[in-house]
Amino acid sequence: MALIVQKYGGTSVGSPERIQEVAKRVIRWRERGNDVVVVLSAMSGETNRLLGLINALNPEGAAREKDVVLSTGEQVTIGLLSLTLEAMGCPAKSYTGQQARLITDSAHSKARIRQIDDTKIRADLDAGRVVVVAGFQGVDADGNITTLGRGGSDTTAVALAVALKADECQIYTDVDGVYTTDPRVVSDASHIPKLALEEMLEMASQGSKVLQIRAVEFAYKYDMPIRVLSSFDDGDNGKSTLVTREEDIMEEVMVRGVAFNRDEAQLTIKGVPDKPGVAFDILGPISDANIEVDMILQNVSTEGTTDFTFTINRSDYAEAMRILEATGESLGASKVKGDDRIAKVSIVGGGMRSHAGVASQMFKALSKEAINIRMISTSEIKISVVVDEKYLELAVRTLHEAFGLSEQSA
Amino acid sequence: MALIVQKYGGTSVGSPERIQEVAKRVIRWRERGNDVVVVLSAMSGETNRLLGLINALNPEGAAREKDVVLSTGEQVTIGLLSLTLEAMGCPAKSYTGQQARLITDSAHSKARIRQIDDTKIRADLDAGRVVVVAGFQGVDADGNITTLGRGGSDTTAVALAVALKADECQIYTDVDGVYTTDPRVVSDASHIPKLALEEMLEMASQGSKVLQIRAVEFAYKYDMPIRVLSSFDDGDNGKSTLVTREEDIMEEVMVRGVAFNRDEAQLTIKGVPDKPGVAFDILGPISDANIEVDMILQNVSTEGTTDFTFTINRSDYAEAMRILEATGESLGASKVKGDDRIAKVSIVGGGMRSHAGVASQMFKALSKEAINIRMISTSEIKISVVVDEKYLELAVRTLHEAFGLSEQSA
Repeated sequence: MALIVQKYGGTSVGSPERIQEVAKRVIRWRERGNDVVVVLSAMSGETNRLLGLINALNPEGAAREKDVVLSTGEQVTIGLLSLTLEAMGCPAKSYTGQQARLITDSAHSKARIRQIDDTKIRADLDAGRVVVVAGFQGVDADGNITTLGRGGSDTTAVALAVALKADECQIYTDVDGVYTTDPRVVSDASHIPKLALEEMLEMASQGSKVLQIRAVEFAYKYDMPIRVLSSFDDGDNGKSTLVTREEDIMEEVMVRGVAFNRDEAQLTIKGVPDKPGVAFDILGPISDANIEVDMILQNVSTEGTTDFTFTINRSDYAEAMRILEATGESLGASKVKGDDRIAKVSIVGGGMRSHAGVASQMFKALSKEAINIRMISTSEIKISVVVDEKYLELAVRTLHEAFGLSEQSA
Repeated sequence: MALIVQKYGGTSVGSPERIQEVAKRVIRWRERGNDVVVVLSAMSGETNRLLGLINALNPEGAAREKDVVLSTGEQVTIGLLSLTLEAMGCPAKSYTGQQARLITDSAHSKARIRQIDDTKIRADLDAGRVVVVAGFQGVDADGNITTLGRGGSDTTAVALAVALKADECQIYTDVDGVYTTDPRVVSDASHIPKLALEEMLEMASQGSKVLQIRAVEFAYKYDMPIRVLSSFDDGDNGKSTLVTREEDIMEEVMVRGVAFNRDEAQLTIKGVPDKPGVAFDILGPISDANIEVDMILQNVSTEGTTDFTFTINRSDYAEAMRILEATGESLGASKVKGDDRIAKVSIVGGGMRSHAGVASQMFKALSKEAINIRMISTSEIKISVVVDEKYLELAVRTLHEAFGLSEQSA
């Protein structure tokens, strides 16, 4: 007998009919002798409806009160699923974040989980109940309702799985697992049945949207296997992707997949004096504005001045340009320029550690298609390049082909 | 400086614009130097939307889970009002029933308030904040979310007012107070500026829908003055009705108002043996089915048999008839019959205690209009009669006129 934590997203619980499908699936897993804990998102559309009300009244208001409003979405679905399970003869009990004693810090709207008290949940499981927990939400030490931010339900599921020492954390989405790249860009992208958590971490960081990066970080840290499945598969014999920490998976293949991110922008400041602390002078004001910097490139100094280039999320572009222009003025830079039509393409694979020449193979493939590389960034198991956005799809297809990732080559 | 608890119903918070109107009103009361605690219902329509989801999945399901779903409606409005107050420069903090430590018993969907821990709320008031509390909901000793049932928000407001020793509990509705009868039936019904809680209790029991009976009971028990106001009045100088325990109000007038209830049905069982225990044989099975019996009439026995007539809520009619027919068979009754087209009309007034002849004046007025009285029930400050439903409006107008309650006569 295993203990399984299952997480269903907003589309999976988007209507009474879909909730009934989820209930049937939960019951099937239970009938095979498993204990099941279910984590739910709000019904699709509900969070946006609530945000609409908030924005009509006070878009800049206290995050504490926004969390009070937003956390109701999941509270509705957990009650509805529990009622549905009961109607199908399966005892169930719902838990809000507060009731599950899912304690977070007080960083409303992006709270971090500190602790979970699993006493009550465990007692319910022992009593033969399915436990249904609201994702995305917790409570701080003072009893204030907090939310974990976008994708928080995945994180709730993994954190609960860790706290309960579950055998597996299943994340149900609208796709049946992780692919070598987005099938909407490369039609013959291959399904990956098994990959390493570390690889998944890089895939998620580099733009793969199948799993939330925070959830993968959590799973990686606590060694919790995640399985990605489709909630649209009729039975439970469909494909899935198992993401685990087993070291042997890592070395299996050189390149596991191609990730990409279109939401990037690049900023450059030219001709700044090349003296200690200049990097901080330039990037300090950017990070003070809560803008996250991704890749950073500093040119080799010529005649005592240097150039800086960095990338940020495209939605921060206008604000970052304004800040950088002010910095340029105070530093006496020769030029400040930007480009919000760039994209990042990355290849990820645990095997890179032991295989030389992956980077040059990547650059060669891109140059053959005359795709100009604007920036490069590497880690142990990933190489990212920045290219003009117009080349994005071509670059993804080229690399997918060059590293033999398509269905046919597998 | 006074402490005021204000309750706003679903229509008053039915849209972002209406919520802004509530916020402005709260701020006006605060600017006059009052501490203000606000209790809110869900946005109008929201509770029905949630009930629709519940009924699509498991209408007969666990009340605990239904309460989890239904309690989200008020949680949304308290967050939204707090955000709106903040946007208008007024510090505010929201409390769910759980956060307000509004402890109830575990009777989900109709929980009774046991205790309120006002420590946190008082600290917020002392810190200059408006406190916004979710109506209709609480939490039981085990941390389960409970709801108080229909009209529960009025009860939350009165209970909070009692716990905080407030100076007044203001109930904002869509009418500007209590009238001598429903103005939709009698166009010149008079506004009552002040009446006794005991009178209000009878008015509410006999069908006046302005205040919820449980809230009035609570206020009566703990001597909390209630003021009924309209949330549609532009300023705060509109009419209102103050409902207090002051004894002197009671004696003021003989008849305060005419209440009525259309949702009644009458059942009769004829020719049952007149022996000890027969009343229980007849009414026991009815109350076992959770059907509330209102008026009961037992005829004088003739030849060892007797007739029983009683009234119930019209929505229970079909079930009650089925039960009574079974009882009739087992008791060997000569006949079982029913009528679901009856109505109850009541006159209420504290002055009845000291005035004789009110009943005969009532019966005379009705007989003059040829309205047949089918049953009569009296209390110290109330006389109710059952009439054919078709005579309801005529009976109300006749009594309103006979006791000089119209605007002109006042």
